[in-house]
Amino acid sequence: MYDVHRIRADFPILSRQIHGKPLVYLDNGASAQKPQVVIDAVTRGYAEEYANVHRGLHTLSSLATEKYEAVRGKVQRFLNAPSEEEIVFTSGTTEGINLVAYGWAMPRMKPGDEIVLTLLEHHANIVPWHFLRERQGVVLKWVECSPNGDLDSQAVIDAIGPRTRLVAVTQLSNVTGTVVDVKAIVEGAREKGVPVLVDGSQGAVHMPVNVQDIGCDFYAITGHKLYGPSGSGAIFIRRERLEEMRPFLGGGDMIREVTRDAVIYADPPMRFEAGTPGIVQTIGFGAALDYLSELGMSNVAAHERSLRDYARERLSGLNWLQLQGTTENKAAIFSFTMEGAHAHDISTVLDRRGIAVRAGTHCAMPLLQHLGVGATCRASFGLYNSKDEVDSLISGLELCRDLFA
Amino acid sequence: MYDVHRIRADFPILSRQIHGKPLVYLDNGASAQKPQVVIDAVTRGYAEEYANVHRGLHTLSSLATEKYEAVRGKVQRFLNAPSEEEIVFTSGTTEGINLVAYGWAMPRMKPGDEIVLTLLEHHANIVPWHFLRERQGVVLKWVECSPNGDLDSQAVIDAIGPRTRLVAVTQLSNVTGTVVDVKAIVEGAREKGVPVLVDGSQGAVHMPVNVQDIGCDFYAITGHKLYGPSGSGAIFIRRERLEEMRPFLGGGDMIREVTRDAVIYADPPMRFEAGTPGIVQTIGFGAALDYLSELGMSNVAAHERSLRDYARERLSGLNWLQLQGTTENKAAIFSFTMEGAHAHDISTVLDRRGIAVRAGTHCAMPLLQHLGVGATCRASFGLYNSKDEVDSLISGLELCRDLFA
Repeated sequence: MYDVHRIRADFPILSRQIHGKPLVYLDNGASAQKPQVVIDAVTRGYAEEYANVHRGLHTLSSLATEKYEAVRGKVQRFLNAPSEEEIVFTSGTTEGINLVAYGWAMPRMKPGDEIVLTLLEHHANIVPWHFLRERQGVVLKWVECSPNGDLDSQAVIDAIGPRTRLVAVTQLSNVTGTVVDVKAIVEGAREKGVPVLVDGSQGAVHMPVNVQDIGCDFYAITGHKLYGPSGSGAIFIRRERLEEMRPFLGGGDMIREVTRDAVIYADPPMRFEAGTPGIVQTIGFGAALDYLSELGMSNVAAHERSLRDYARERLSGLNWLQLQGTTENKAAIFSFTMEGAHAHDISTVLDRRGIAVRAGTHCAMPLLQHLGVGATCRASFGLYNSKDEVDSLISGLELCRDLFA
Repeated sequence: MYDVHRIRADFPILSRQIHGKPLVYLDNGASAQKPQVVIDAVTRGYAEEYANVHRGLHTLSSLATEKYEAVRGKVQRFLNAPSEEEIVFTSGTTEGINLVAYGWAMPRMKPGDEIVLTLLEHHANIVPWHFLRERQGVVLKWVECSPNGDLDSQAVIDAIGPRTRLVAVTQLSNVTGTVVDVKAIVEGAREKGVPVLVDGSQGAVHMPVNVQDIGCDFYAITGHKLYGPSGSGAIFIRRERLEEMRPFLGGGDMIREVTRDAVIYADPPMRFEAGTPGIVQTIGFGAALDYLSELGMSNVAAHERSLRDYARERLSGLNWLQLQGTTENKAAIFSFTMEGAHAHDISTVLDRRGIAVRAGTHCAMPLLQHLGVGATCRASFGLYNSKDEVDSLISGLELCRDLFA
């Protein structure tokens, strides 16, 4: 039984007040709060068990290494990846996608080669590909979504031409909440022999993920959205792609031998992890994955579906609010605009009532341009949010209407 | 008055026992332990004040942004950089040097162009330059140190030829403890119009740093060696060089505008900070810099000098121990070998006595090859170490001699 009130008690910040009101945290799309077990893992990591990893034989170093490396298996199981060797630790999705752009795409793409993207992408899954356009003449092919945020998988597959070398697509839009059928896209892309990168920043937070079932080549996740520490993350990279990649960041730990004249690189995944890693935040990330696994991602998803349904019903009752993205199959992420009120003003008024939402372009400018809006407010729900908080949001929005309309 | 026993009480892990013995932590060269103020800053960052930065207008996001951005000024003052705009946050020195390699060197270096390096360098300041050798024909010119670890600044300056585009040099060897006269090197390099990157991973930990006085173009530091969290760091980049650099990691936060066809990048330093940063570890890094500033880096340096002198005297009395690096001007970092005993075995025996040292090649294989040793043991001291701990090390080594000799 998913008891949201018991779960809320696991998150110390949720008992905080903002402007004298209980915090209603609806900015999970930007970053999620952390349960006490994660905070404790981090504290213990520094106060009792800290040393550099992979490098020492003394007790603390062995202990830290063991705890750190154990997280690779946790990520593997969380994503159902075939092996731990296909999990590379990163500082988050941004570094993960840049690793693919620099390590895999850059050395193999020629002028005129194409990357297929969708308009639902976050800048993290856009700007690294723009680098390839700017620097080596790669062509970006954009697949549009419908005005309600729907993405037709077949349109993505149809966009794959003979020069397409990669499809880079999000599993879940951080603006509209659209769930993309990445499995169908991968199926179509594989028939044409084209690898697929899935940006799982949001997807992995809101539903169970199975990269073997999806069949993708790359799947990037970020710890801070998964209720883990900032600066943690990982990417699944299918073995064949790993073998094709050249090193990205250079430094200690990713080498077998260095001389004045040459470097022999370590085997993957170490080849792609340079220097002292984010030791303690990765250990904390592992604690977050344990926490999520204990709750069960399908239970989290079911809870968030009921939140989504309730919020959708209540929000669509506000006929003075324009919802951006009303597709049926979406997560509990709601972007909206209100005539006569700027998104920033709405956010400020809500904040005075303790309600944290985000206002802006959500690192997804091409999508907002496509939707024809400058900035939106976004309420994004997480595993600890409750229906009461939907009610708080609604009454906060009603206040905004009274103030600005 | 520098009271090392009072200072030790600030570091919770130092009261820990290892194999029933008090921990004697002499692996500071790999990573330093954290004072309670740093751990508290991290805990508070997650438990009370967490949200994503730069992106929200709500209270928690403003609070986190304010605390996060305040660290830029702390780094600026710690390094005496001219302005905050010349401080780029990184996940550590490795990312910092890769940023320079990819963002500054890669687009401007042609086949046959040279980078001058020294044999004292850590792999973090070697492998990124090997990438340029492998990928675009850049030539690495190595300056040797003397058998005792001394580096002649004039030899570095003399190695700069008409094709030299960069000098990359450490301020302090992590193996021999050699302090390099980077100011003299920069003076000579500037006369020849060649920029200098200083790897400050170790230097900034053991002495006051003034990048304006040094005159270098790049100075990279890493938080975890500076008693701060893992995954934190920064690099000073002189304004002229910043202007010359192209973006490295692509994603959110480093852009002003993104469309399907183009990107307009944000101004430096944001241009070089992509995606959600290491929010809480950076805030913790700021707490570490506050802690160091309160102690005073010249007091830290004086304390460590007295440790060095005492350790040098005691270690050089052991005529069955071969010290690697006996230069006069060195930090309290001692690498050594013992005939008949492998470094790993020494480390293991010491660990049984609670003494943490590192055994291996210390991410500095070219230096060890030059010194003619395969692996060494390294005892590296920090601001909380005491003369008693030097005595513990000596008696541990005497035990090793008895066991292995």
